[in-house]
Amino acid sequence: MTAIKLYDLAGADPARRFSPFCWRTKLAILHKELEFDAVPWRFTEREALAFSGQGRVPVIVDAEETVFDSWAIAQYLETRYPERPSLFGGATGMATTRFVNAWADKVLHPALAALVLIDIYAHIRVQDQDYFRTSREKVFGKTIEQVSEGREAKLPAFRQILEPVRTVLQSQSYLAGARPAYADYIVFGAFQWARCISSFKLLDAADPVAVWRASMLEAFGGIAGAALGYPV
Amino acid sequence: MTAIKLYDLAGADPARRFSPFCWRTKLAILHKELEFDAVPWRFTEREALAFSGQGRVPVIVDAEETVFDSWAIAQYLETRYPERPSLFGGATGMATTRFVNAWADKVLHPALAALVLIDIYAHIRVQDQDYFRTSREKVFGKTIEQVSEGREAKLPAFRQILEPVRTVLQSQSYLAGARPAYADYIVFGAFQWARCISSFKLLDAADPVAVWRASMLEAFGGIAGAALGYPV
Repeated sequence: MTAIKLYDLAGADPARRFSPFCWRTKLAILHKELEFDAVPWRFTEREALAFSGQGRVPVIVDAEETVFDSWAIAQYLETRYPERPSLFGGATGMATTRFVNAWADKVLHPALAALVLIDIYAHIRVQDQDYFRTSREKVFGKTIEQVSEGREAKLPAFRQILEPVRTVLQSQSYLAGARPAYADYIVFGAFQWARCISSFKLLDAADPVAVWRASMLEAFGGIAGAALGYPV
Repeated sequence: MTAIKLYDLAGADPARRFSPFCWRTKLAILHKELEFDAVPWRFTEREALAFSGQGRVPVIVDAEETVFDSWAIAQYLETRYPERPSLFGGATGMATTRFVNAWADKVLHPALAALVLIDIYAHIRVQDQDYFRTSREKVFGKTIEQVSEGREAKLPAFRQILEPVRTVLQSQSYLAGARPAYADYIVFGAFQWARCISSFKLLDAADPVAVWRASMLEAFGGIAGAALGYPV
């Protein structure tokens, strides 16, 4: 079987792969016991993705199939490879994992971006910085520098936001139960995003979320832990 | 088969059954195509629950089995009646539904309580009001009146908190997918709690969350919609 081609967001150093959505996809591919060939891609390389009909990663090419959007890719993998380990554990599991996905996108990511946005900016190519600054400052309504100001003071509120994750992890080892599945890759993607570009400490070591994160860094031969970034 | 006995939180009017946790349990029992016999119970009737070894509802008695805590009851029903419609759709579905449960308990309920706490107080028996005031004022660190002050101004933030629910419901009819299951009963329980004791309008009619709520009010023969409360 040929490896799945994955367009993977990269920083100024092509080895720095920091997209939370691409991490969801990488771990989902490995969960399916498949391989991927990650092609570095930068924010402004629109023409390289034109074949997919849109301009953002992750995009995968699996034999003849092109799929974009991390959630659509996870659904594709589950449907295309039903005999391999399930990402969702059935229709209800997929439906409820979608809630985790929506929570990560709408709550966790904005809160985390407010802590590390300046660090993303510092790790991308100079020629991508204008695009990044303009697009993110439009979203946040302030400068990148202002967004990340006083982040130590925002840390308690960020940790509070994690309370539903923490509560679940006090009762089970992974968000998906006894073993990790797509719900874990969604939330872990956010922490890996931060780790790849920022040395800012997000969690106390004793936090159940930190314990789970450590376990996720070691999953699949430690691929996430070995990726270029900062110690957590 | 004998009906499951359910100790169900009631207001000054014994027909007013407003506990969000008891609503989770009632809908879970109906989902399993079982019947329940709901016994009204008030906050200070500790001795009536002493047999369960703790002092809160829901408590169910199913033949010889006594189970308390809404999540434990849902797990009990799923395990005891595996051949009946599933509340979780398997182990992964149960694990990810637990995230919905934790989000409802830690995020949705406190936000909603801040809007309707004063209305709960107004609908419980006079002899239960001291207990309610003391216990809730300890949790919130202010008086019941202060908690509910200026609630119109808090409404946009409350609706923002629902964004993950709203996002999911833009892609599927129920939190559990094409049909409701326990994830829906968890979140709906919060809205039913509010409806049973408060006329305060929480949602715009066009909100996908309101559309879903309307459908939940009609589920199982419209039991939730017919319960004593206020129009939504």
